[in-house]
Amino acid sequence: MSTSPALIAVDWGTSSFRLWLMSSDGTVIAEHRSHEGMSEVARRGFGTVLESHLAALSIPDSLPVVICGMAGSRQGWVEAGYLETPADVTTIGANATVVSGAARPIIIIPGLAVRSISEPDVMRGEETQLLGAHLEMPGGELYCMPGTHSKWVRMDGAVVTGFETFMTGELFATINAGTILKHSTGGEGPVDAQDPAFLTGVRDGWTRPEKTTHHLFSIRAGHLLHDRGADENRARLSGLLIGAEFAGAGIQGGEQIGLVASGALQRLYHAALSECGVRVRDIDADAAVRRGLVEAWQGYENRNGDRKRA
Amino acid sequence: MSTSPALIAVDWGTSSFRLWLMSSDGTVIAEHRSHEGMSEVARRGFGTVLESHLAALSIPDSLPVVICGMAGSRQGWVEAGYLETPADVTTIGANATVVSGAARPIIIIPGLAVRSISEPDVMRGEETQLLGAHLEMPGGELYCMPGTHSKWVRMDGAVVTGFETFMTGELFATINAGTILKHSTGGEGPVDAQDPAFLTGVRDGWTRPEKTTHHLFSIRAGHLLHDRGADENRARLSGLLIGAEFAGAGIQGGEQIGLVASGALQRLYHAALSECGVRVRDIDADAAVRRGLVEAWQGYENRNGDRKRA
Repeated sequence: MSTSPALIAVDWGTSSFRLWLMSSDGTVIAEHRSHEGMSEVARRGFGTVLESHLAALSIPDSLPVVICGMAGSRQGWVEAGYLETPADVTTIGANATVVSGAARPIIIIPGLAVRSISEPDVMRGEETQLLGAHLEMPGGELYCMPGTHSKWVRMDGAVVTGFETFMTGELFATINAGTILKHSTGGEGPVDAQDPAFLTGVRDGWTRPEKTTHHLFSIRAGHLLHDRGADENRARLSGLLIGAEFAGAGIQGGEQIGLVASGALQRLYHAALSECGVRVRDIDADAAVRRGLVEAWQGYENRNGDRKRA
Repeated sequence: MSTSPALIAVDWGTSSFRLWLMSSDGTVIAEHRSHEGMSEVARRGFGTVLESHLAALSIPDSLPVVICGMAGSRQGWVEAGYLETPADVTTIGANATVVSGAARPIIIIPGLAVRSISEPDVMRGEETQLLGAHLEMPGGELYCMPGTHSKWVRMDGAVVTGFETFMTGELFATINAGTILKHSTGGEGPVDAQDPAFLTGVRDGWTRPEKTTHHLFSIRAGHLLHDRGADENRARLSGLLIGAEFAGAGIQGGEQIGLVASGALQRLYHAALSECGVRVRDIDADAAVRRGLVEAWQGYENRNGDRKRA
């Protein structure tokens, strides 16, 4: 009876809530998504919001819940802290924080932190995705997890030796909507991963990252002087920022990288990394976070078993 | 009678209007400022707005007006076009566009353009400031004109051989107000040019510009992990972006640069350039644009004189 419900896996981010009803062998029995913002959730209460989603799916009261993401931040439900690098990613479940006072077992996964003085960094949610990606590609040494805040992670076996966050996605959205470039990039249409303007932008950003804030203005000038169109300009903006991210991550071309992504972002980054000569191993981000949540729950249960035996 | 009114000099930007009543020898007789946005001006009409400002100062109908800035753009009053680099900056007056149908002589100065295919660039308003700066420092080869869109200009004598725009000021404002960093940089207070966080940011941005979008996120992490305060974080944000601009402009330290700026921006850039070992020659931006406007008017009159003699 491997497909009987065994676990509720939740990726609870700042602006999105994703819940999967999982069997013990990792099969997805049901899925539920919503887009409540963090402030709305905080107002209604995390427990209330979670139970309302569970009730909508008629999920039994006894099933445990494992959560990753911003629900574990200081402004979230229960602060789940950070594991400091170097950190064994397979220990995130054993270090989970239990939500007390709930009717069912609920745990929240900790984030990871680089507690450096000069270049501190944090992730929350991606560590669970990373655990899934590590299980999918055990020997991987470098992972790229694109998004609002792209993460580049170095691993030695299961140990995260370091990581760096780049604000690529948020900068794209902010520059596209909130600067003079909005008159030239014209809105929110998708960027075509095969658009030559995107790929040239990637190369320019990667090879000359010091010129990025100049190249950005040059998009405006290209509109004024050469009548370049909005789709081309938006593609170049996206490419420049992604290319600058690659330069910051130090890619040289030739290395293998695990690309943990889905959908449009997966297509853009796959094309961009290939343009720079990287050998890309695609790892589906949704599958990775589900696998990470299931594995983290096992880690939590094993810890409890060890304690009971001790 | 050198202090009798001879010319009305106007710097008309996107969000600010500055008018000086000048004598023939360049003395300022009166000054007037306002902050109407371009859309408001377009609605009322440029001519109406200008005459209302002139009436407020009781300026005689016969005095000529010379204007630089966004009033000469396609969305402005009368499109004044661009001179293409290499361009002799002393010829901007002779290439001015006359506003027809006005009761008094009114001319608008053209902008400058780099009509490159791969990295086009434009300036409008700064070319007049640059003319004034060139007259102030005739042998200068490199000028930095900080602002919303910072301009770096290479000159050979009076000829602008090339220039590059960096979106530094606009990126600072947008990132400070519109990204996750707003929770860590906390508002709009001034940045102290001597703040160590500012100067360290300048060095980091200058020496490792490829890390800029990572260093930005690291400000957020430094707030979460090390409780760093808003003033320090805002100073580092400013420093990182200015330092990355220096890297893009290719400064090595040791060279002399004419810094065309005023007020808080002058203090920040002076401190930042000094931190990188540059020999800074300060040129007041307000004085430079006035001198440029007066000189441009002379250039326009000389052209007309030549035509009458021809």
